[in-house]
Amino acid sequence: MTKPDSKRSSMALVTGKPANAAEEQVNNVSSEPSVSGSPHHAVTPATPTKHKSAKQVSRDNLSRRNTESEVFDDGTNTFFWRAHTVTVLFILTCVLVYVTLLEETPQDTTYNTKRGIVASILVFLCFGVTQAKDGPFTRPHPAYWRFWLCVSVVYELFLIFVLFQTVRDGRQFMKYIDPKLGVALPERDYGGNCLIYDPGNTTDPWHNIWDKMDGFVPAHFLGWYIKTLVIRDWWMCMIISVMFEFLEYSLEHQLPNFSECWWDHWIMDVLVCNGLGIYAGMKTLGWLSMKPYQWQGLWNIPTYKGKIKRMAFQFTPYSWVKFEWKPASNLRRWLAVLGIIFMFLLAELNTFYLKFVLWMPPEHYLVLLRLVFFVNVGGVAMREIYDFMDDPKFYRKLGQQAWLVAAITVTEFLIVVKYDPRTIMLPIPFFVTQCWFLGIVLILSWTLWRFFIRDITLRYKDARRRKQEVTGDCGRPHGNGGTATPSGRGNGGTATPSGRSKLNGISESLRHRKS
Amino acid sequence: MTKPDSKRSSMALVTGKPANAAEEQVNNVSSEPSVSGSPHHAVTPATPTKHKSAKQVSRDNLSRRNTESEVFDDGTNTFFWRAHTVTVLFILTCVLVYVTLLEETPQDTTYNTKRGIVASILVFLCFGVTQAKDGPFTRPHPAYWRFWLCVSVVYELFLIFVLFQTVRDGRQFMKYIDPKLGVALPERDYGGNCLIYDPGNTTDPWHNIWDKMDGFVPAHFLGWYIKTLVIRDWWMCMIISVMFEFLEYSLEHQLPNFSECWWDHWIMDVLVCNGLGIYAGMKTLGWLSMKPYQWQGLWNIPTYKGKIKRMAFQFTPYSWVKFEWKPASNLRRWLAVLGIIFMFLLAELNTFYLKFVLWMPPEHYLVLLRLVFFVNVGGVAMREIYDFMDDPKFYRKLGQQAWLVAAITVTEFLIVVKYDPRTIMLPIPFFVTQCWFLGIVLILSWTLWRFFIRDITLRYKDARRRKQEVTGDCGRPHGNGGTATPSGRGNGGTATPSGRSKLNGISESLRHRKS
Repeated sequence: MTKPDSKRSSMALVTGKPANAAEEQVNNVSSEPSVSGSPHHAVTPATPTKHKSAKQVSRDNLSRRNTESEVFDDGTNTFFWRAHTVTVLFILTCVLVYVTLLEETPQDTTYNTKRGIVASILVFLCFGVTQAKDGPFTRPHPAYWRFWLCVSVVYELFLIFVLFQTVRDGRQFMKYIDPKLGVALPERDYGGNCLIYDPGNTTDPWHNIWDKMDGFVPAHFLGWYIKTLVIRDWWMCMIISVMFEFLEYSLEHQLPNFSECWWDHWIMDVLVCNGLGIYAGMKTLGWLSMKPYQWQGLWNIPTYKGKIKRMAFQFTPYSWVKFEWKPASNLRRWLAVLGIIFMFLLAELNTFYLKFVLWMPPEHYLVLLRLVFFVNVGGVAMREIYDFMDDPKFYRKLGQQAWLVAAITVTEFLIVVKYDPRTIMLPIPFFVTQCWFLGIVLILSWTLWRFFIRDITLRYKDARRRKQEVTGDCGRPHGNGGTATPSGRGNGGTATPSGRSKLNGISESLRHRKS
Repeated sequence: MTKPDSKRSSMALVTGKPANAAEEQVNNVSSEPSVSGSPHHAVTPATPTKHKSAKQVSRDNLSRRNTESEVFDDGTNTFFWRAHTVTVLFILTCVLVYVTLLEETPQDTTYNTKRGIVASILVFLCFGVTQAKDGPFTRPHPAYWRFWLCVSVVYELFLIFVLFQTVRDGRQFMKYIDPKLGVALPERDYGGNCLIYDPGNTTDPWHNIWDKMDGFVPAHFLGWYIKTLVIRDWWMCMIISVMFEFLEYSLEHQLPNFSECWWDHWIMDVLVCNGLGIYAGMKTLGWLSMKPYQWQGLWNIPTYKGKIKRMAFQFTPYSWVKFEWKPASNLRRWLAVLGIIFMFLLAELNTFYLKFVLWMPPEHYLVLLRLVFFVNVGGVAMREIYDFMDDPKFYRKLGQQAWLVAAITVTEFLIVVKYDPRTIMLPIPFFVTQCWFLGIVLILSWTLWRFFIRDITLRYKDARRRKQEVTGDCGRPHGNGGTATPSGRGNGGTATPSGRSKLNGISESLRHRKS
């Protein structure tokens, strides 16, 4: 009956019939609402070319669909789901009339300027929450994700503004947000005694360990739990977690609060906090990918228990996509995964550097708000990046939230560089430079070997084997020789054992290329 | 192969088979891309209820489709059409690196603040032009309309900021945009001699007419030409054109430049400038609704002449929807049309009042920019309002551009009221009050009669006739009596002659209600 209804009804699918599903996929792709706003056109396959290309898309997506959960939805659409555009416009008008005409305007210019900016932001949020483009997530409500999208825009514009100020003005500008800010931070000494068992301290020799058991332990755990839900891959999480400790080692000459004891780095952080967080995250991911996605309208559920359960499930995702990053399957994905890891680490470093250059005390609420912000937008951005990377033919645009998160990370980094070039340019210790140089060389040479040299070797071997087979098969009748070749090669002694197929995905892609 | 491709392929339709088209419409409605970003789901009709409701939507839209042009599109998709999200992000990053790190930051705080705000707006435009939600228009390029959407957002936020300042600060704030602004305008005398033939002036007795032949004549003509393209209805244009002259009469005690000679109001404005503009607009509308909408990719056209023609046609709409406002068909549409006319007139008045309260000279470029802005967003907004009004079941949201234009018009009016309540509250002459009171009473009583009293009378008559027919038909066998009744009534002597059916649409709707 209504638009969201029909949207949801399109979600109500029964999978498990790939051949049939591929056919239906063709309809789905070719019958999207038209750009020019006239979605009532009847759909007929336009030209043979179009039809073919649509079919090709659907074939490409067959593998994708295996990573998606099945969704059953009865398509109930209540007041809760409507956008209320006209209602919001009406309320906004009433508020504006009240505040600007019936209240007396204060004579304080600074106060009015602040008030004007806050009002502009609120109006922007009103507009965005009702009207912005929807992202991939819909639970608990699409408006929630539209809200965070708008917050990203506001935050990015704020960063751009700060970026264009002089260092002094920028730091003083923070006073407009909180008068306590804009004051240089006291130097802190993070060095000290690294003994696990400290015999010098007679009252409690284990005091070094107890000292570390502060609020940061649950914070680290929770942080990595959420990061795992965002990245949805054990390997990438572990790599980022370990890489960050390496970064802390490398940068402790710039930011003193990166210097920790060795056991703090590897045991407390990587193993205990991050490791447990990732483990719990992976367990949740497993549950989410197995959980049935059955959505019934609240009023269609007979029991009270069922209703309460349904309400709670409103805060779980509408459907689920398992991320299979497959970094080694081709050069594009490899570079994309490297880029994601790079941006992820950059965003993590920004947390510390931004506090440092903008003179924010670590316990300030803005620091916490920034983390809450990243938790909310990070998941959307990562999903959009995954979609863009996994299926660039369908998702032709990099998602809006991913675009903004990338822009925000870059802008934050530029602020850090502009506001404190001295700290950033502090000479890196020779040993650290060597390590990074070695790491980069290793990655580069692996990339070269994997995507250039190995590919050529494989193709050469393949050509030779086929030549041999052709000379061997010469006498036999030529039945299904074409299909026999790739499967023979797949089982044969090539360089890709089947166990690594999740990472590689190359055996399938090569087979596709041939067939 | 690609998303915009498939979008366009869905547009490639062959109409003229309504029964078949209705069936295909069902597929079209139920197979929209899903909200949660996983559009690869196979589509199966969810429940019998869903299927039925989708069919109902399609039946409702059959009448709508008659007002839409047919579109043929070969679905060619070139570099020109891509969104370039990643490219824009990359270029933006490069520009930011260059401007903020390689250029030296000036020490002037005011200059930096301005620069920061301009940079924020530019980044917002970069984001919006690549990522904002598309509206109903696609030609010459969707990015063009996304650009104007973002400009609307920026303009609305600017207005909100101005609204929250004191009157003095707000006027002085304009100095930041142009240092020449923020100065009180000189009083002008618009009264004078109204003789068409002025015997007192011996050199040229017709000088009063030549004086009026200034740049405003082509401006009025062009303005109404565009307004006609926006409104797409002769009657509504004429009503708004005449109403505005009445408003000028009524408000000349507030704004002296509303006072014109009688022949200037009715002959120069309504008949010559507006009339000719509307006439030319209606001719163009006729051409646009008859013109074939056949889109071929530029490289698929063999001749050079064809290529050039295709390039020129890029600046014509992708498809065309005739607006049939039918204000008298039901109370909802009647109120909507009244609301549109009201907002339209308010926006026109704002042009004059805003100049007046913000001390803008009439020839200032900002005044012109505002008109260019309204020309660009007005068309989109009106189309979105028409869609929302015509088919609220499908377009459940009021379009984003319509929302913004409404908010902008309201905010502009609030600024006028806040900045110069004295002028707005100047006592209206008694004669004018009487006229408006009469007008409002007439509209109200017509509304009452048309949608309440007349409806009851019609229903009563209908019931009586049916009763008579039933008593008359008693002896005859009861074949297709049900369908015979409404058609008999339709041809009979009811209060709706068929000539007025375009305005009314009630005879059909009543017939539907019965069948």
